[in-house]
Amino acid sequence: MEDVITRGTGSQEFALHDVCCAIGLPDAGYEKRAWERLDSLTKPPRSLGGLEAIAARMAAVQRIDRPTAAPAAITLFAGDHGVVAEGVSAWPSEVTRQMMGNFVAGGAAINQIAGYVGARLVLTDVGVATDTSGLEGVVQAKVRPGTRNMVVEPAMTREEAAAAMLVGVETARRLAREGVKVICTGEMGIGNTTSASALTAAYTGVPVSRVIGPGTGMDDAGLARKAAVVKRAILLHQPGRLDPLGTLAALGGFEIAAMAGVFLGCAAERVCGVVDGFISASAALVAARLCPDSLASLFGSHISEEPGHSVALVPLELDPFLRLRMRLGEGTGAALAIPVMGAACAVLNGMATFDEAGVVARVEDDR
Amino acid sequence: MEDVITRGTGSQEFALHDVCCAIGLPDAGYEKRAWERLDSLTKPPRSLGGLEAIAARMAAVQRIDRPTAAPAAITLFAGDHGVVAEGVSAWPSEVTRQMMGNFVAGGAAINQIAGYVGARLVLTDVGVATDTSGLEGVVQAKVRPGTRNMVVEPAMTREEAAAAMLVGVETARRLAREGVKVICTGEMGIGNTTSASALTAAYTGVPVSRVIGPGTGMDDAGLARKAAVVKRAILLHQPGRLDPLGTLAALGGFEIAAMAGVFLGCAAERVCGVVDGFISASAALVAARLCPDSLASLFGSHISEEPGHSVALVPLELDPFLRLRMRLGEGTGAALAIPVMGAACAVLNGMATFDEAGVVARVEDDR
Repeated sequence: MEDVITRGTGSQEFALHDVCCAIGLPDAGYEKRAWERLDSLTKPPRSLGGLEAIAARMAAVQRIDRPTAAPAAITLFAGDHGVVAEGVSAWPSEVTRQMMGNFVAGGAAINQIAGYVGARLVLTDVGVATDTSGLEGVVQAKVRPGTRNMVVEPAMTREEAAAAMLVGVETARRLAREGVKVICTGEMGIGNTTSASALTAAYTGVPVSRVIGPGTGMDDAGLARKAAVVKRAILLHQPGRLDPLGTLAALGGFEIAAMAGVFLGCAAERVCGVVDGFISASAALVAARLCPDSLASLFGSHISEEPGHSVALVPLELDPFLRLRMRLGEGTGAALAIPVMGAACAVLNGMATFDEAGVVARVEDDR
Repeated sequence: MEDVITRGTGSQEFALHDVCCAIGLPDAGYEKRAWERLDSLTKPPRSLGGLEAIAARMAAVQRIDRPTAAPAAITLFAGDHGVVAEGVSAWPSEVTRQMMGNFVAGGAAINQIAGYVGARLVLTDVGVATDTSGLEGVVQAKVRPGTRNMVVEPAMTREEAAAAMLVGVETARRLAREGVKVICTGEMGIGNTTSASALTAAYTGVPVSRVIGPGTGMDDAGLARKAAVVKRAILLHQPGRLDPLGTLAALGGFEIAAMAGVFLGCAAERVCGVVDGFISASAALVAARLCPDSLASLFGSHISEEPGHSVALVPLELDPFLRLRMRLGEGTGAALAIPVMGAACAVLNGMATFDEAGVVARVEDDR
């Protein structure tokens, strides 16, 4: 089960640029044909609302008339954050490594949900502070053992950020080659809502106060501390609007960079990418800024309790359809989207048309 | 596959009263224990939000520490509505019978979704205007071939309404005896959003204008006609707040009555009942008015586009978690809730505790 992703040598940033250049939009012809079929099926037109839209867009992304949500995979990237030195998390950094052990042992929430929905779980250490090589089944792709403290210096160098993104790209590519059609993104990283908040504020221009939330359990004093830390980091690095990779390097995390890479990889490989909660959405913002066309291959899943999630979703134009007040991460919300996407495909692929079923047209028109 | 539900003879209303008297609340002890376990699992407490609440309430309803969403069934009741004579639907009544044929042949949306989520589909004719006995697999429990026109006379007699409810009760009881743990409600009945609108206005006291929507496809003129029809029916019958069965008889439909019966049957049999869209929610209002304790066994699924659905959900205190702008009926939204409920059970039943996983407690407290 041991596995090592080979990271490119030389300029990671150039390699990432090449990935972005190769990404195109999904095929609108498939989407149009899907809608034509959906409108001929035995139901009032568009009466399955978002479910139909999901099916039609899956057809476009996969460039096939009969899309599918199987096989599906959940890619879970783990990384640590130097900024936890500022007291921004209710949990100590060692929990990242301990939870990786829990994922490997099958005891975490995402294990149960992945198993229930029939999705494969792919665990990758892209930047955990401590050694995870003893954990069987964890892909070893550590760029660095944790980011630097963003209020002191950039969390990552540009090359490190690009390298972590390429780990995600490669993960998506490998899964695509193995036939995976839907890839959900998940993460584990103590302190990463602070990073996601900083990225979301930097990429959207929305005030820090509107993107800060309790994460996985901060009190009011902790929240104020977290907001102050994010503001200091943004003031220090002055992230430029035209340099999305520099912004990611200054304020991001390895697991966030890797998820952004997965989104680019999905777009490049005609695979449907599923955004999870706030951290995952901040990664989608990275992908969107680097390669706007990549967004069209992404699907929303749930809307979390974190205020920053709603902020990030606006430019992403995603339509998350699950409202369960979840705020755990790990890809738990994205994984719950898999059966809905599968049902959407079943509707498009399996329903009878009015003609086939011998059901009469409606009173008011002659369709 | 032919099947006939034996309806009681003599006073259906008395039999229904007996059903209501036997219903108690779910067992709070199981719910408390479920929360204790959920709070000991390897995640920040309550970080799976509504998913945890679903699991805990399923434990209480099923009176078991490890609840399950399998096997699940979708009960789809069909009935016609005399009020279609007033031009309140975009589709002719014969579509009800034709769609039953489509359900039997496996070509409808609910067939695909039921198949995908692994739920059994139970079709029952409780009041279709035409004969469905030639359709293999349709349970024959027709109370009457369609309701009367509610703007002229009561849609049903009290005995007919009670009989249709008992069909639902029996359906739930039979499925419970066969081991089914979750029952979703669905319907097919041209004209039934008009009936659901009238019931919702009558049971909640909300103005008719706020509960009227396009159903499965009315234009503005049709909407105005529908609102006028509902107002006339309510003025004619003056439904009393203390006579929920009389209100159902005057304004309801056979399929709505049967779904209300399913909800009572679920509560009586410790089975989780799932509310679908607007029509199903109006049936839940019937159950709630007849037996308020029955509500505690019900689960929300999706929130539909019909304005009346939101109105009906207020007194039901349901928390629908899917937002897909669906407005088809057939139980399609409720069926999509099954995998979410199953995932909730998987989390409760399968996750490791902090102690088991060797994950340290958080910084701020010593849990």
